[in-house]
Amino acid sequence: MSDADLLAKLFQGDPRSIARAITKVESGSKGAAELMKAVFPRTGNAIVIGITGAPGAGKSSLVDKLALYYKDQGEKVGIVCIDPSSPFSGGAILGDRIRMATLGMEKGVFIRSMATRGNLGGLSRATVDAVSILDAAGFDKVIVETVGVGQDEVEIVKTADVSVVVLVPGMGDDIQAIKAGIMEIGDVFVINKADREGVIRTQKELEALLGLAHRPDMWMPPIVRTVATESKGIEDLSAAITSYFDFQKAETGGMVRKTAIARWRLTELVLERLLADLMKHNGTAEKIDDLAAQIAKKEIDPYSAVEKILDKS
Amino acid sequence: MSDADLLAKLFQGDPRSIARAITKVESGSKGAAELMKAVFPRTGNAIVIGITGAPGAGKSSLVDKLALYYKDQGEKVGIVCIDPSSPFSGGAILGDRIRMATLGMEKGVFIRSMATRGNLGGLSRATVDAVSILDAAGFDKVIVETVGVGQDEVEIVKTADVSVVVLVPGMGDDIQAIKAGIMEIGDVFVINKADREGVIRTQKELEALLGLAHRPDMWMPPIVRTVATESKGIEDLSAAITSYFDFQKAETGGMVRKTAIARWRLTELVLERLLADLMKHNGTAEKIDDLAAQIAKKEIDPYSAVEKILDKS
Repeated sequence: MSDADLLAKLFQGDPRSIARAITKVESGSKGAAELMKAVFPRTGNAIVIGITGAPGAGKSSLVDKLALYYKDQGEKVGIVCIDPSSPFSGGAILGDRIRMATLGMEKGVFIRSMATRGNLGGLSRATVDAVSILDAAGFDKVIVETVGVGQDEVEIVKTADVSVVVLVPGMGDDIQAIKAGIMEIGDVFVINKADREGVIRTQKELEALLGLAHRPDMWMPPIVRTVATESKGIEDLSAAITSYFDFQKAETGGMVRKTAIARWRLTELVLERLLADLMKHNGTAEKIDDLAAQIAKKEIDPYSAVEKILDKS
Repeated sequence: MSDADLLAKLFQGDPRSIARAITKVESGSKGAAELMKAVFPRTGNAIVIGITGAPGAGKSSLVDKLALYYKDQGEKVGIVCIDPSSPFSGGAILGDRIRMATLGMEKGVFIRSMATRGNLGGLSRATVDAVSILDAAGFDKVIVETVGVGQDEVEIVKTADVSVVVLVPGMGDDIQAIKAGIMEIGDVFVINKADREGVIRTQKELEALLGLAHRPDMWMPPIVRTVATESKGIEDLSAAITSYFDFQKAETGGMVRKTAIARWRLTELVLERLLADLMKHNGTAEKIDDLAAQIAKKEIDPYSAVEKILDKS
């Protein structure tokens, strides 16, 4: 299939063409930059929802139920699942393949798993490109779901229009720890598994923490209780997401956030290009291997080794 | 204090000099590269233990108890806590300050919180440098503890001599998800809060998963049950850590792992230097700001913007 055909089919929303385009940007293959240049002008129509939270919070069920809810409203929904897969196996999560089989095929929701980073960095940029592809392909809602809660994941979720942080009752001893990392990015908070003991205490703690926070935009993030496995609270969650989306659109036209996203995306791309250009030089890959072995044997320190790589390139 | 004085005091194990040296590598200030060149030849004596796991698993308590255990054996212990703190506030976790005050001052354990990444990347490299500094300062054990479980954190924990993954009973629904990301890096597994219901089921699930995995080095990771808050199982954990350390040392002299670490560290440093060199050019920072604003307004796409930045630099 030619690039022009791929684009034409992609803009019509053809799932196989979408998948192929995402593979292209993920692998950083030749036509990726040209593809994204063509995709970019068509973006800006989807509402991008980032969902993060600790493992065990039931994010996957919540995302599935939210996706089905939107689907029932007649909307096209894409899910990009960010997956801290092993750099060794590079494999996607088994569970996602199962979800893709049931949710994806039968229900018409597009799901795609992506790793946060390859060996040489840069794949968090690819996930943002994947969101743009789905946007350009005519999806109304794109949900970005993270498995991990690390810095890369936080940065990716920040590129969403609306960021949702999922907690569960009884996380008391780590709520402090989570606070610093992901509390600040939540536009909407969900207490999932809200039929469990401790939900009131968790809500009170969360309200106290949110009361201390000072958002530049003065938004007070709503707290929604859900029981995703029983589809409870999903409509409330949808309403909370819409309320923040409308708020930020009215407030700043979304420009502050959009500029911050663009800046991050630009820096990621610059880094990727700089490294790719360096690796193109004859022998750079071998030189890195060789110097890494020397560092391991303590024949050279890493800082001097870097100078050797950069001086001669 | 001159750089030579700082180094001399650092090698004597002076806490304030260590703290100052870490701040230097963290901020990437001028003398950082020279400092690390001097530090590097003194490294290689500490055993570096990486500890990761989901929020809520009680990692902090476990790390504290393990540190105190080593301390009671007459060893010097340093803790580097990796913290997905917000790029906005840049703040360390309040809880760590409390820990530093109690554990650090009174008990003679050195604790330092570090962010995984700054706005422009590269701070995961700084955490590895901090470990080297503690190593050179004569610490016997350096524990690297992550708050998040994202890709950056996984990569940092992989730079340890022994990686410990902490789980809790009843994580069933997400054990599958965690598998892909962090199962593979665990040399030792801990089921903490082992006085809770479901411990046997979690252990069985874990054993089944580990039975499926094929490690290149044929090591079968031990599973240790702990109740950190009651100091139960800490000695077993220490023994399991030592057993893997001895195993990998006998097997390969640790060379395979050391080379992989060196390679990762080198690539991180190269990226950091490439970006720093680019930013040194007159007007690059302004150009990025300007182009980010244009992307936000959809006047240009990110890929074309990158070409503008790199062509003229």
